[in-house]
Amino acid sequence: MQITIDLGERSYPVLIGDKLLENAKAHLDPYISGSQVCIITNDVVAPLYLSSLKAQFEKDYQVFTHILPDGESSKNLQVLEGIFETLLENACSRDVTLIALGGGVVGDMTGFAAASFMRGVDFIQIPTTLLAQVDSSVGGKTGVNHRLGKNMIGAFYQPKCVLADVGVLETLPAREFSAGLAEVIKYGLILDADFLSWLENNIQALLEHEAEALAHAVKCSCETKAYVVSKDEKEKGLRALLNLGHTFGHAIEAHYQYGTYLHGEAVSIGTMMALELSAIMGMIDASAVSTAKQLMQAAKLPVKCKDFIEPDILLDFMSVDKKALSGRIRLVLLEALGKAVVTDNFEIEDVKQAMKLCMPEKQEE
Amino acid sequence: MQITIDLGERSYPVLIGDKLLENAKAHLDPYISGSQVCIITNDVVAPLYLSSLKAQFEKDYQVFTHILPDGESSKNLQVLEGIFETLLENACSRDVTLIALGGGVVGDMTGFAAASFMRGVDFIQIPTTLLAQVDSSVGGKTGVNHRLGKNMIGAFYQPKCVLADVGVLETLPAREFSAGLAEVIKYGLILDADFLSWLENNIQALLEHEAEALAHAVKCSCETKAYVVSKDEKEKGLRALLNLGHTFGHAIEAHYQYGTYLHGEAVSIGTMMALELSAIMGMIDASAVSTAKQLMQAAKLPVKCKDFIEPDILLDFMSVDKKALSGRIRLVLLEALGKAVVTDNFEIEDVKQAMKLCMPEKQEE
Repeated sequence: MQITIDLGERSYPVLIGDKLLENAKAHLDPYISGSQVCIITNDVVAPLYLSSLKAQFEKDYQVFTHILPDGESSKNLQVLEGIFETLLENACSRDVTLIALGGGVVGDMTGFAAASFMRGVDFIQIPTTLLAQVDSSVGGKTGVNHRLGKNMIGAFYQPKCVLADVGVLETLPAREFSAGLAEVIKYGLILDADFLSWLENNIQALLEHEAEALAHAVKCSCETKAYVVSKDEKEKGLRALLNLGHTFGHAIEAHYQYGTYLHGEAVSIGTMMALELSAIMGMIDASAVSTAKQLMQAAKLPVKCKDFIEPDILLDFMSVDKKALSGRIRLVLLEALGKAVVTDNFEIEDVKQAMKLCMPEKQEE
Repeated sequence: MQITIDLGERSYPVLIGDKLLENAKAHLDPYISGSQVCIITNDVVAPLYLSSLKAQFEKDYQVFTHILPDGESSKNLQVLEGIFETLLENACSRDVTLIALGGGVVGDMTGFAAASFMRGVDFIQIPTTLLAQVDSSVGGKTGVNHRLGKNMIGAFYQPKCVLADVGVLETLPAREFSAGLAEVIKYGLILDADFLSWLENNIQALLEHEAEALAHAVKCSCETKAYVVSKDEKEKGLRALLNLGHTFGHAIEAHYQYGTYLHGEAVSIGTMMALELSAIMGMIDASAVSTAKQLMQAAKLPVKCKDFIEPDILLDFMSVDKKALSGRIRLVLLEALGKAVVTDNFEIEDVKQAMKLCMPEKQEE
C-alpha cells in the first residue's frame, strides 16, 4: 500500500508493505535523479541488510556506504561530520541521493546531512524500526543532539520517498518494538479514537508481528502524522499535538543522559504524566487514564519512572525544551481519548503532582 | 535607501545608507519578533561596534553575545558548535533572533546557526565588509567549510532584514575593501553593462570611500543579485551566473588552503581565467578582457596568481566544486561585457591555457 504526504511541491510517498526491501531498487528507482547513491546505516543494521541493498543498486549506480555507530550517543555534530567526509572523499556531487537505512538516529542524521551537504541533496528513508516507520520517517524533522539538549541542531527537510518494510521488524529487539508502539498509541490518543479502539483489540497481533496488522498500524500512524504535518509543516500549531508525552519524555531522557530509557519508553512515561495532569485538571476522567495505561502496559511499555526524580529537576530540563516559547512551557494534554490540546494554562504544582504519580515515592535518606 | 529581496513569504528588505548602525535598534525593531537577541560577531569587529550595538538593544531585549575568532579558518563545524553552546547555555528559545555583525564568515555561520538551531530561528545581517554587503547578505546562502572543500555544509536560509551601513567600511582594511570590489565588478560583468561603465568612471570615488558612490554601488550590486536570486532561489539555473570566477577562484583558495588570497582576490584571478577562456573560445575579444583587467587593477586586485600552479591541480580541486553536476565541471563564461552564460561545452586544454595566462610561467627546476 502507499500513502502520500501532501506538502505541495515537497510531497512524497510512503510505501508500506511486507518484504519490500527485497526489491528496494525497483521501488526506489523513480525517486533517484542522479547517478550516485550513498547508503548510510549503522553497525547493527549493516550486517543484516546492507550488502543485499548495496548489490541491488550497484547495477545502475555508483554506490558508496557510510556506517555510523549505533545509538543515540552517536547523534552529534562530530559523527555527522564523518558523513560529509565520506561524501567529499568520494567526490559526491549535488545530485547524489542519500539513503537512510536504519532507525530514527540514522534517519535524523542522514536527513540533516542531506539538508546540509552542499546546501541540500536528495534523500530517501528506509526505516528499519517501528519508531522510525511511524514517526521519524514522516514530518521532515532532521537533526542531531547537543549535550545541552536533544534535537537542538537540525532542519526541516523532506525525503523524496519512504520505504517502510514491516518485514524488517522481525529482526528488531522486542524492547525497541514496544518503544515504537508508544508512538503508535500516541496517534490514537491525540486524534483518532477509532484507531485507539482498534489498538486495544489488536495489540497482541502487533506484538506477534502479524504483517497485515503491522502494515495497518504503520499506515494509520503515518496517515495521522501526515495529516498533521501537511496542515502545519513548520510546527507552528497543530503539529505540537504530536508532542504528547514528549516534553516530559525528553526531560526524563535528559535526566538519564539518554542512556536508560529508549525514546519511546520515555515517551510512554511522559504520556502518562500528561494524562495524569489532564485528569488532575479535570479535563479527562480516571478511566481514560486507566485505558491508556493498560494499553501501554499491554505493549510492554513502562508507565512509571524506575527512580524517584525531583520534579524540579525535570522542570529544569523542560525549560530548554525547544517547544517552549520564550521560556514558557507549553504542554500537550488530553480533553478526551482521541482529542488533544496544547496549553500553557496549568499550575506548576499540578505538573509536579502528575510527575509524582508516575514515579516511585521518594525514599527517606 | 531600501531595496526588497522578493522571495514571496520569505521576502526581506536591505536597508542601505551611511551611519545606519548608530540607530540600528530603531531600524531593526520591526523585524524582531521575540524578546531574546544574540549578537554574533568576531574578535576584530567586536571592539569597534559591539558595545554600542549591544547597549542599544539592552533597553528592550535580553541580549547575548558570541564572539568568533576572525577569519575563514574558523568557519567550520567545531566553531559553529560554540554558537549553539552559547544559545543553549543562555536558554535561548525558538523565538530568539540572531544578529550577524561582521563579514561573510560571520554572516554565513550565523545564518547556518539560525537555520539549524532548533531547526530554524530568525536572523538579521549587519554586514561590515563590502564583500558581505554586496554578496553574502543577499541570497540566503549560509554554511561552513569542510577541510575537503569550501561551503560544503550549509543551508539556503533567508534573513529577516539586512542593514548595510556603508559608514563602517571606513574601518575596513584596504585589501579587504578591494576584495569586495571584485564582487561588485562581477555584477557589472555578468548582467549590467551600464553599471560596468559607471564603475569605470567611479572606481576612484569608491576607493576614497565616498558614501554616495558606495551606497550606489552596494544598491546596484544587491539589486542585481536580488534579481538573480528571486528568479532562482535554489541555484538551479540563472543563479549560476553569480559564480563567474568562483569555480576557478575556489580552486585557487583551496590550493593555498584558504591562507594566501582573500576570497575576492581569488575571485578576481578566477574571473580573469574565465574571461581569458571566453576569449580563447572566441566568445569575446581581447579588448573586453583588457577592460575587465584594467578595472580589476584599478580596484587594486590581483589578476594573476603569484605562483605557477599546475593546471591539473586546480582542475582536481574544481571537480569537487559543488557547482559540478555528477563530476562534470560547468563554468560561467562571458559572451559580452554584461552578458554571462553557463556552459559545460569547452575543451580542457583551453581551460588549462586560460589558467596559464593568469599565472607566472613555470620555473625550470
